[in-house]
Amino acid sequence: MVDYIGIRRIRELVAQRGPARVLAELAAQIEADYARWDCFDKSPRHAIHSRDGVIELMPTSDGERYAFKYVNGHPKNTAAKLLTVTAFGVLADVATGYPVLVSELTITTALRTAATSVLAARYMARRNSRTMAVVGNGAQSEFQILAFHSALGIRAVRLYDVDRAATLKLVRNLELMDLADLDITVCGSVSEALLGADIVTTITADKRNATVVQPEMIRPGMHLNAVGGDCPGKTELHADILRRPDARVIVEYAPQTRIEGEIQQLAADFPVTEFAQVVAGRAPGRANDAEVTVFDSVGFALEDFSALRYLARLNQEVGGQRETIDLLPEPLDPKDLFTQMSGRPARLRRVA
Amino acid sequence: MVDYIGIRRIRELVAQRGPARVLAELAAQIEADYARWDCFDKSPRHAIHSRDGVIELMPTSDGERYAFKYVNGHPKNTAAKLLTVTAFGVLADVATGYPVLVSELTITTALRTAATSVLAARYMARRNSRTMAVVGNGAQSEFQILAFHSALGIRAVRLYDVDRAATLKLVRNLELMDLADLDITVCGSVSEALLGADIVTTITADKRNATVVQPEMIRPGMHLNAVGGDCPGKTELHADILRRPDARVIVEYAPQTRIEGEIQQLAADFPVTEFAQVVAGRAPGRANDAEVTVFDSVGFALEDFSALRYLARLNQEVGGQRETIDLLPEPLDPKDLFTQMSGRPARLRRVA
Repeated sequence: MVDYIGIRRIRELVAQRGPARVLAELAAQIEADYARWDCFDKSPRHAIHSRDGVIELMPTSDGERYAFKYVNGHPKNTAAKLLTVTAFGVLADVATGYPVLVSELTITTALRTAATSVLAARYMARRNSRTMAVVGNGAQSEFQILAFHSALGIRAVRLYDVDRAATLKLVRNLELMDLADLDITVCGSVSEALLGADIVTTITADKRNATVVQPEMIRPGMHLNAVGGDCPGKTELHADILRRPDARVIVEYAPQTRIEGEIQQLAADFPVTEFAQVVAGRAPGRANDAEVTVFDSVGFALEDFSALRYLARLNQEVGGQRETIDLLPEPLDPKDLFTQMSGRPARLRRVA
Repeated sequence: MVDYIGIRRIRELVAQRGPARVLAELAAQIEADYARWDCFDKSPRHAIHSRDGVIELMPTSDGERYAFKYVNGHPKNTAAKLLTVTAFGVLADVATGYPVLVSELTITTALRTAATSVLAARYMARRNSRTMAVVGNGAQSEFQILAFHSALGIRAVRLYDVDRAATLKLVRNLELMDLADLDITVCGSVSEALLGADIVTTITADKRNATVVQPEMIRPGMHLNAVGGDCPGKTELHADILRRPDARVIVEYAPQTRIEGEIQQLAADFPVTEFAQVVAGRAPGRANDAEVTVFDSVGFALEDFSALRYLARLNQEVGGQRETIDLLPEPLDPKDLFTQMSGRPARLRRVA
């Protein structure tokens, strides 16, 4: 039997551990894995694009554990009351190749993306950042705000979405979350949302709206957490922002980000720093308070590896109802798969 | 909820439909999909190799459905009473990116590999082939023999394995299957097994035993169904067999087979024919009764796509107990994933 975490169980795990603590523990796991970057087998994710979206596989391994995530991105899904992004993943044992955990990753992707964002911001944002603009108020926005509130001390959010209903949903959920001292401002435009922001999180889904943030909206010292642009043809920042002489662009895994990230708009040799170098202390996340820092985040397989390892541990530690699924045969004789299928006893007769 | 086929359900499906009919229907589905080869998004599978094995992801899509398989290959697993190969897979809807079926594919891979082998042999083996050598009597051997007996008229099998216990297990299972008019001969060597064989199926697992079949064992007119060599460094046929002037080598998907198949031993421009060309009638599977035909089979993602589509249909048609798993959230508001996680009602308060 293989351990299984479905929607019921992930809700149980997050409720019992508490979402802010889950985000903090996830960020710690992701940081620990980025710190051993060289241990990982890395490749750009495998993507199959179609008219309305993309389906991707994101595998990696550290030589002991193997993990992959299946994830789709279909911006038009919301019109049919479906999620833009769904995901699931599997953790496996490298020594035997056996899967050990199958887990939902739709909710977990929102958690791990927020954890990665806040982890990067700890290295890249100005100390004492207090105000965050959140452009795109869809499925991932609450997770981002909760993470930045609990782990980075953000106390004011300035919200904008082309879909006002999405913003109202976010405000409603933030009020229900009752975050301490959080000042919420609903803005009428992207530029209004960015006024006075220390950190700008862009988390939009629509491929058509390719330039969400314009150069004139940027102020020295801002940290841009560019989460939504993660696909060829899907960007959020005007290229001139990246080209600013005072800009520092940090990416997760350069070969993948050059295909999918904001930097797809730039030359293939545009200088970027991989985040692992920052975690290792070999490169700065920010050199001074005037730099514009850009975390050109697309989501890398390592973060899902970290999330699956964390979930496997959390699933052991948290009470409630664990589940398993019968995904694998368990033959008495591993060379006798046929009996496992047919269910007939293998030892009825002896053959000389 | 997502449809789920585990070990219990696959046993129920195969028992109710009958294994020979499942193999025949699978072969028909695989043939139909090879006939529309150009519809598929094709790439060599993604592999991460480790000391003792390999873990692979095999995705493909026809633009309507997307499928991938996870599969491992760990020859030493049997010493620990574990299977050499385990697998599972997912079928998804391209338009929405939503998974629609999660299924075991360990048993199904054995079925689809046997179905692919017999499908290829229908195009490539001499008509009226009656005798098959089976070299390697492990987990997949019963499936191969059942397929060739029921769909190609094989009436004699000549068995060899370096592990005599595996051969005895195979004989026992064949006697329990009670296949009509099947003559079973246990042989003491590979060369003895090949004596008088019309078809030679090699289905060994060990990477170390790289040359199982030697050139002098081959007779004109033989069809070689080379199944076990499917990984860099893992081959079964001596390269001189492939180089025979009277040999015809047919592969599933050349870019993958040049990495993994028997032809990895040969130059990158060694002439091969893709099986889809044979199915389409654009190339012969065999030109005359004297040719040595080689199906250099490594397993291609299309065959798992076919298998998953077939399983999805079979799961609807066959009675018994269908199962689902809660792999996906089902939010009322697709932009409100946070409420799906926290479980709190989204409409407690209205915000102006």
